[in-house]
Amino acid sequence: MARPFEPDIVELSDEDFDRQAEVYGKLADSIRRLSTASIQTTVNLADIEALTVELNSIAEKLEADRIEGSYGVSITTTGRFRGYGNAVVGLRNPVAPPLQIHQDYEQGIATAEFELGPRYEGPPGMVHGGVAALVLDQLLGEAGSASGSPGMTGTLSLRYRRPTPLGRLSARAWSAGIEGYKNTIKGELYDADGNVTVEAEGLFILPRWAREAMEAQKHATPQFER
Amino acid sequence: MARPFEPDIVELSDEDFDRQAEVYGKLADSIRRLSTASIQTTVNLADIEALTVELNSIAEKLEADRIEGSYGVSITTTGRFRGYGNAVVGLRNPVAPPLQIHQDYEQGIATAEFELGPRYEGPPGMVHGGVAALVLDQLLGEAGSASGSPGMTGTLSLRYRRPTPLGRLSARAWSAGIEGYKNTIKGELYDADGNVTVEAEGLFILPRWAREAMEAQKHATPQFER
Repeated sequence: MARPFEPDIVELSDEDFDRQAEVYGKLADSIRRLSTASIQTTVNLADIEALTVELNSIAEKLEADRIEGSYGVSITTTGRFRGYGNAVVGLRNPVAPPLQIHQDYEQGIATAEFELGPRYEGPPGMVHGGVAALVLDQLLGEAGSASGSPGMTGTLSLRYRRPTPLGRLSARAWSAGIEGYKNTIKGELYDADGNVTVEAEGLFILPRWAREAMEAQKHATPQFER
Repeated sequence: MARPFEPDIVELSDEDFDRQAEVYGKLADSIRRLSTASIQTTVNLADIEALTVELNSIAEKLEADRIEGSYGVSITTTGRFRGYGNAVVGLRNPVAPPLQIHQDYEQGIATAEFELGPRYEGPPGMVHGGVAALVLDQLLGEAGSASGSPGMTGTLSLRYRRPTPLGRLSARAWSAGIEGYKNTIKGELYDADGNVTVEAEGLFILPRWAREAMEAQKHATPQFER
């Protein structure tokens, strides 16, 4: 198992990278669609049972050739990053919305505009408080990289100012101060009207072994391009 | 849209409840299986494209009859609770593992043993820090109910003591003090060896409108049976 910040290096042309991203992305999108249908469907139970048999048959075909365990992260010889299994941004992970996070290295911030549908529900019609935390954790981490001091979550504090309705949302995160390998990062989640629904503050820390690995490999920090 | 703690009341026999839970549960499980396959598959791209067409065709059939929007929560006339869309515990939500949380009303605690696979990855081989937050938010909320003072997340603070490996995990949450409608709840996430990987503390608050709704309806707090 690779350790964080030590991506596998894979030989892959940009053309093949793009082709794979397209095919895998559409597969994951169809499973996201099925996931919403699983929550919403009211077709009769016998039909659902028959369709479930078909779905398991397709799963078996996809499983005929596969990797073991989790996806991990990899970087191609041309520098394209793949964190396709990531639960927030992973192209191939149907659990992920997936978020497309924009990192601004000039300003040291990370932003995202996205939609959270019925799959992310907590209280009726609202985003699950833990899903807000999930999204903000990822965004704060990417703001860490954007501000020049990446790290893993050490602490994360969330303040829920009002319920977050399911639907169109946005979020923003920025560094509030870097000390050595510790980056204090703040962020906010906004509803469609721009109201702050959740505030986050986290301390992101780059562990010693990761610093050593980065030194040894002379790789730049993964830019989380997707 | 119903508000939290105001479940819809539905007429449904226990027999039909059980039958539906079985059929819907198997559908969601097959989509969870597909989600993992989406991350792991290495079958050739043309085959994946053909299988994606089939998956979209099945989605279309499931969508032929459906509710609009999110699932919400409902309670049957015999008192069975359904929060099937919940992102952590929802039987019908493939995003959810789903967790089976045990609430102990005698001790006022909530516990869960569960597995988080490749769909919940953050750093390679590790549980996403935000997924740990997601799970703990739900568990702390259920400990709130178990300790007699339910509420919605007001604040949530997480301390990441060590990485959480994907695989078998457990978690526990308990009330650390109730003042009026505010319940301070603590919780811990444990790896397979029983090490604490993440500590959580949250302030859970029952909003005024929810208190009034509960008074008016004379319903007990939903017990989150699943």
